Amino acid sequence: MRPFRTAEIIAVGSELLTPFKADTNSLVLTTRLNDLGILVAGKAIAGDDAEMLAALVRLALARVDLVVTTGGLGPTEDDVTREAVAGALALAMHEDPTLMRAIEARFERRGLAMPASNRRQAMVPDGAAVLVNPAGTAPGLWIDAGEQAVVLLPGPPREMRAILDGDLKPRLAARSGGPPVERRVISTTGRPESAVDEVVAPIYGAWRSGPLPITTTILAANGQIELHLSAASDGSDAARQRLDAAVGTLAGALGDIVFSVDGQPLEAVVGSGLRARGWRIAAAESCTGGGLLSRLTDIPGSSAYVIGGVVAYENAVKVADLGVPAAMIEAHGAVSEPVALAMAEGVRARLSADVGVAVTGIAGPDGGSAEKPVGTVVIAVAVIGRGPSVRTYSFLGDRAMIRTQSVVAALDLVRRALSSANP
Amino acid sequence: MRPFRTAEIIAVGSELLTPFKADTNSLVLTTRLNDLGILVAGKAIAGDDAEMLAALVRLALARVDLVVTTGGLGPTEDDVTREAVAGALALAMHEDPTLMRAIEARFERRGLAMPASNRRQAMVPDGAAVLVNPAGTAPGLWIDAGEQAVVLLPGPPREMRAILDGDLKPRLAARSGGPPVERRVISTTGRPESAVDEVVAPIYGAWRSGPLPITTTILAANGQIELHLSAASDGSDAARQRLDAAVGTLAGALGDIVFSVDGQPLEAVVGSGLRARGWRIAAAESCTGGGLLSRLTDIPGSSAYVIGGVVAYENAVKVADLGVPAAMIEAHGAVSEPVALAMAEGVRARLSADVGVAVTGIAGPDGGSAEKPVGTVVIAVAVIGRGPSVRTYSFLGDRAMIRTQSVVAALDLVRRALSSANP
Repeated sequence: MRPFRTAEIIAVGSELLTPFKADTNSLVLTTRLNDLGILVAGKAIAGDDAEMLAALVRLALARVDLVVTTGGLGPTEDDVTREAVAGALALAMHEDPTLMRAIEARFERRGLAMPASNRRQAMVPDGAAVLVNPAGTAPGLWIDAGEQAVVLLPGPPREMRAILDGDLKPRLAARSGGPPVERRVISTTGRPESAVDEVVAPIYGAWRSGPLPITTTILAANGQIELHLSAASDGSDAARQRLDAAVGTLAGALGDIVFSVDGQPLEAVVGSGLRARGWRIAAAESCTGGGLLSRLTDIPGSSAYVIGGVVAYENAVKVADLGVPAAMIEAHGAVSEPVALAMAEGVRARLSADVGVAVTGIAGPDGGSAEKPVGTVVIAVAVIGRGPSVRTYSFLGDRAMIRTQSVVAALDLVRRALSSANP
Repeated sequence: MRPFRTAEIIAVGSELLTPFKADTNSLVLTTRLNDLGILVAGKAIAGDDAEMLAALVRLALARVDLVVTTGGLGPTEDDVTREAVAGALALAMHEDPTLMRAIEARFERRGLAMPASNRRQAMVPDGAAVLVNPAGTAPGLWIDAGEQAVVLLPGPPREMRAILDGDLKPRLAARSGGPPVERRVISTTGRPESAVDEVVAPIYGAWRSGPLPITTTILAANGQIELHLSAASDGSDAARQRLDAAVGTLAGALGDIVFSVDGQPLEAVVGSGLRARGWRIAAAESCTGGGLLSRLTDIPGSSAYVIGGVVAYENAVKVADLGVPAAMIEAHGAVSEPVALAMAEGVRARLSADVGVAVTGIAGPDGGSAEKPVGTVVIAVAVIGRGPSVRTYSFLGDRAMIRTQSVVAALDLVRRALSSANP
């Protein structure tokens, strides 16, 4: 049989056509398909409309090897995926007795009578294979269609993943013949997307052609710019080395704005740097309101190097709990380099930390002035036995964007303080 | 002309077919279209493939009144949307001299020579109207196709929104004849999705039929369950009152797990409660690591009622900075009701707050025991002049889910402490 090389994903559910809910199941699905060498050629989102869904399935089968649907397998009349796919493939449906018993047993265990509507979940198109759902009542289905196949998965992410990593995986692996997609990611912060693109675009432009083209995608989010490289690999060491060399070339051109080339988030890189030196950190936060400490402690095991800190939203807390002289706040303002330095050194000394980091700024929308507009943020890092560093930033965007950029900039200033190359 | 009632959104870009990027532009677009009475009947995602995109546009025109594309309007060869739509509508292309001058002027202002590739951005299908892009070089385009229309918008969210809320809005308003979709949201926390559904499903089931059916969507995320109600309104007061009555019925059945019926997030509801009483809050956080204070201060103007707090990730900070007796931690463990109460009262007293809230727990993946497994979280609230409240929770999920649920539960415990009905 011809191996699967391309797939289309169809997400089903009227809620996915409202302003409230985006399809994210397809991202998980894409990762697993790519790992097996199957590329996603297109995606579609359909409401609970059997006729339109059947048309989408037929169209997808005209262009790809594998069609995967998510959603619409529940027990209600809105759940039309089984019928729509059966219709698209001109298959009759029958009640699967094993499935029926399993669904009844699920209700019996909970001491409930099975609602009649749940019978729908035992109806399967003729010739379909059941994919066991260990996390819910809606089973997945695998339906062969000549050399192609249609796979039906439930919409709840936990159930979809359980089937994807359970019954579906070996079936897909057996039918996929493509080389797996190899990926690399280069993470940077401190320069805007356009500046990163200017450096890397002339380099990676040349890699797009050739027998194993490397595709490069720039993603900008929350003060960080990521370069995603991917290439269909032939599984050889040479293919991997070629991608590693590409990462090395780009990272070398970008210099010290690169904080990881292995997908590690910035807070994990900072954590590794602290661990490597046996140092512990404390933070004093004003405008970020706890967001910096929250992100540092996102990492499992961060209690080894995070002591804690003080959220000094009000100036009185900066004075009482961080030892910032009231006269200094009076003279320079709470958002100033002397105050940030005093906060960083204050929290470091009071919590007996090796590294103290402080953020004070104006996140807006109010509180700005001509001299210090909204977006003015001062960040200081104090390291035991070394001179402190401090920097004033002017961030653009709304309150949430300014706060996020402040957290990223603070993490990056700590990273640079930890790096011996940038003491 | 027949007014627009249905639309399809096509997002263009190969990065949207990778595991890294979901289409979220369509959510913003859907809100704006719904506000004008245009329902989204389907969505599709296409790679940088002119032929497939042209096929998708033709298909969409076979079923809806309006097709909106996002992305693929840049200057490179990967940007195929203009050509694909022209192809789908069998239109020739020409260079628009006004556009060409505007693009050249943009480069001149920055003292740069315009790369030849940018000429592509001035190419427009015959008969297209230009939608000015105040935020970038890629203009939007409006192309009439008989009684239907195809609208091309750039992919960067900021540019898409600028055109959507600028040139596009009046054009769409003039062509849409449908009643706007009215929406309501009921936000709850403290009970699982299935329990909420069991209460509300029998009620709203009856509203699905009728001349103006009300559709209800349950969305569960991060420890909160939201019920979204929407109905095509005829613009009359009666229609609005009917939706308000539906909200009243559902909220009444759900009781005090409802924290807002106007879309206000929980941290804003807590903020309003504090403001109303003229009270100020301080927090002591262990396992949430600053996430609670960060969320409280997400709200603009929160400095009026948030003093700050202490992130006591290490036990020594609980003792030194919150006044928790070391012997108490020794006797009961850091994750215990006595310690949570001491932390809440400690931070309240030390920061001179009216309300103190404390979170201590085991977010995992390590640190659990048979007696206190991962997910055990204790939350306490101390209110000046009143008895404190404390509760022990057992949360499920990974570290991030346990931390998020802890933040939501802490906000909810404060909300209940502030509510006179639940003192």
